[in-house]
Amino acid sequence: MNTELTSLLRAAVGDAHVLTHEDPSADLSAWENDWRKRAQGRALAVVRPGNAKEVAAVVKACAAAGASIVPQGGNTGLVVGSVPDDSGTQVVLSLGRMQAVRAIDAANLTVTVEAGCILQNLQTTVDEAGFLFPLSLAAEGSCTIGGNLATNAGGTQVLRYGNARELCLGLEVVTAQGEIWHGLTGLRKDNTGYDLRDLFIGSEGTLGVITAATLKLYPQPAAQLTAWAAVPSLEAAVSLLGLAHQRLSAGLTGFEVMGQFALSLVNKHFPALRVPLWAESPWCVLLENSDSESETHARGQLESLLETAFEQGIVSDAVVAESLAQANGLWHIRESIPLAQAEEGLNIKHDISIPVSRIPAFCTETDALLQREIPGVRLVNFGHLGDGNLHYNVQAPAEMDARAFLQTEEERVNTLVFDMVARYDGSISAEHGVGSLKAAKLPHYKDPVALSLMRAVKLALDPDNLMNPGRVLTP
Amino acid sequence: MNTELTSLLRAAVGDAHVLTHEDPSADLSAWENDWRKRAQGRALAVVRPGNAKEVAAVVKACAAAGASIVPQGGNTGLVVGSVPDDSGTQVVLSLGRMQAVRAIDAANLTVTVEAGCILQNLQTTVDEAGFLFPLSLAAEGSCTIGGNLATNAGGTQVLRYGNARELCLGLEVVTAQGEIWHGLTGLRKDNTGYDLRDLFIGSEGTLGVITAATLKLYPQPAAQLTAWAAVPSLEAAVSLLGLAHQRLSAGLTGFEVMGQFALSLVNKHFPALRVPLWAESPWCVLLENSDSESETHARGQLESLLETAFEQGIVSDAVVAESLAQANGLWHIRESIPLAQAEEGLNIKHDISIPVSRIPAFCTETDALLQREIPGVRLVNFGHLGDGNLHYNVQAPAEMDARAFLQTEEERVNTLVFDMVARYDGSISAEHGVGSLKAAKLPHYKDPVALSLMRAVKLALDPDNLMNPGRVLTP
Repeated sequence: MNTELTSLLRAAVGDAHVLTHEDPSADLSAWENDWRKRAQGRALAVVRPGNAKEVAAVVKACAAAGASIVPQGGNTGLVVGSVPDDSGTQVVLSLGRMQAVRAIDAANLTVTVEAGCILQNLQTTVDEAGFLFPLSLAAEGSCTIGGNLATNAGGTQVLRYGNARELCLGLEVVTAQGEIWHGLTGLRKDNTGYDLRDLFIGSEGTLGVITAATLKLYPQPAAQLTAWAAVPSLEAAVSLLGLAHQRLSAGLTGFEVMGQFALSLVNKHFPALRVPLWAESPWCVLLENSDSESETHARGQLESLLETAFEQGIVSDAVVAESLAQANGLWHIRESIPLAQAEEGLNIKHDISIPVSRIPAFCTETDALLQREIPGVRLVNFGHLGDGNLHYNVQAPAEMDARAFLQTEEERVNTLVFDMVARYDGSISAEHGVGSLKAAKLPHYKDPVALSLMRAVKLALDPDNLMNPGRVLTP
Repeated sequence: MNTELTSLLRAAVGDAHVLTHEDPSADLSAWENDWRKRAQGRALAVVRPGNAKEVAAVVKACAAAGASIVPQGGNTGLVVGSVPDDSGTQVVLSLGRMQAVRAIDAANLTVTVEAGCILQNLQTTVDEAGFLFPLSLAAEGSCTIGGNLATNAGGTQVLRYGNARELCLGLEVVTAQGEIWHGLTGLRKDNTGYDLRDLFIGSEGTLGVITAATLKLYPQPAAQLTAWAAVPSLEAAVSLLGLAHQRLSAGLTGFEVMGQFALSLVNKHFPALRVPLWAESPWCVLLENSDSESETHARGQLESLLETAFEQGIVSDAVVAESLAQANGLWHIRESIPLAQAEEGLNIKHDISIPVSRIPAFCTETDALLQREIPGVRLVNFGHLGDGNLHYNVQAPAEMDARAFLQTEEERVNTLVFDMVARYDGSISAEHGVGSLKAAKLPHYKDPVALSLMRAVKLALDPDNLMNPGRVLTP
């Protein structure tokens, strides 16, 4: 127990905001454990600063003591990047108390918000002010803006609005030296030097701590319409995407693809959801059209698009949601695939991206490879086709015990899939990041010059390797 | 003369592609002189490699000899960032021979192109394939993609499509060590480590040499309509912008503002252009609506927007172009302001950005300050209001000699304007970059922590300061 450090931490943020195992009544498990139960850590302390100056004081204290720091937002990440290791020597720096939406600038279409603000709270606040903050993902009820930016979160609206990176204009960051970079600009153009903002975004807390951000807002669309289409092949889905880009332009805010087996699992485990059109078609697509004009206009556009697609033979059947409730129902089916998968049993998950044009060939070849290697294997394939991002998940053969399948096959399946991703110029982590989970894989799949540039940047900004060590880059 | 280095360079790229002053018939002035005549350099050699491997060999040869490298594209920059100093020791690395458009991936909506490709040639090539590459700026007939990315170029379509940064997905870069980073990805999502792409974009050749890029394409709009509106004040222009965002959403591809004095100069020096509505109004606005549907639809939207704006009193009069020729004519007026200014005489140019919401107050206060300091001074104010980017230019009082005005007042006017920009949380270089011209100013206007982070990155990636030294960061 490093008592000198903990008293410095208490001095920095106040006694009430430093939790340690010395206090037998303190329960640190929410900060120490990965929510998917893949890692259980033990922290020296959990520190909860209330502002950037306190964050800076915490970082300085840790740096002086040589204690490493694990920044943490909502702790909802998927790659084990925000929990401490089990050494009992790391300090968890939780941004959870820094939740303020500092200011909305209506004419500038920006909002400035602290890192610990929960995504959904930000969505609601700006919605009430008449604006849209378009970042949207499954964890939005618990994840925080700081974590979204540190991991460059994706989600369902990337096709139109980009990843978290594209939604951010300015940052406030505490460096590994405990200095505060005041970079909360709301400017859309600023060419005065290197792009530090994008260096911190997506660096997963390994270069510094994001404490606040200035983000883009958008006008709320006048209408949002959702359609569900059965398509005869993945090639047809890609053609439909091209047609939708052309016809709807930036109105196209969602384009999700779902394989027949994925939908069959939803149908099997959640029959009340009434999955449409899945039984006769190898793939279904969910399209969303957001319109600044009216619902009538949006519906006309979407129906005309689907008619043309039907004539071209790239859509075999389709429904357009008649109400917001029906639209939500269709999205709910899409979002229930992971749960249906879980009901079916453990499986091996992948979050990959491939150039859109090469996705059909990638799936054909990888499906065949896996089926050759593991007869009877079942592929739960779905994702954000518009972004080239597939959740290409691998489920045990029906007759095989899922736990045993994972134990014996996970490593081999990962290698088979990732090697194929590399052959198709794809990414082994499209939106979830690297964390601890994929850090050891990176050297095999990342360009060696890129890796050495990354190491040089890390060494320059955090020479003592205090910030979230072992994440992204292995020692 | 460093003969050992020049023979290494000749070996790397071939005799024909190394130009030196040893050859009395060689004319190096196109590579040595700033096109706005603000600097005249003398190079040790101009080297013109034909591919990334040759670029790498050039960089390695220079690094071994300790010679610094000035990467150069079209040499059309506005901040003296791409010409050598007058020492005769620097090597100009021209990307001009690397012009290939390597591949268009239609379904992925991407194009891969070499750094030396002229922007207009890229626009034309993808246009012929049915796509739009939206980067557009005055120098497009001579500037190159590599330079556009190295300086994060802006232009007239930023409002909808972003700066050069937002249009780029992947890069091929030769590092300061002469290694090639193969990062030509066409992925829209890739969270496998630090964002090196955005680190090189906008770094003005000081961290490495961009040799190729994979860029985003867009479907061509079905129609593009332009309107010209007189507005009673800059506040009204900002309100009109907000209304246009709401009504046209991403269809709003241009929103330019022009002050009365700026338009009066166009009217005076180019009367044939027939500037509309300028005489009775302090400000005019040019709006562009790009539509994926039809011209009729685009016209309906634009007319309805202007009607509402008229009712709200934020537009006093307006015309919508009846033909493409008329639309081009309106844009031509906007683009003629710098030429009209030049006809009127030398002036002090600024390329600043301010949060959109604060632009009216900034202009009121800065106009008053300058008029107080320099009685009779004339302000040529125009720019990309949608991006918060003003070309806030200062012209001598009518009775004063322009050259004398520049000599005595330029430094003082710059300081007055930049100090005010800083007070309004703006940027002293919105789209032109830093180069040599503003490098010495940066320490006064940039956050000190940001500057020290920039220096740390520079030292990490280019420890011997060989890449475009003295640009962006002063020694």
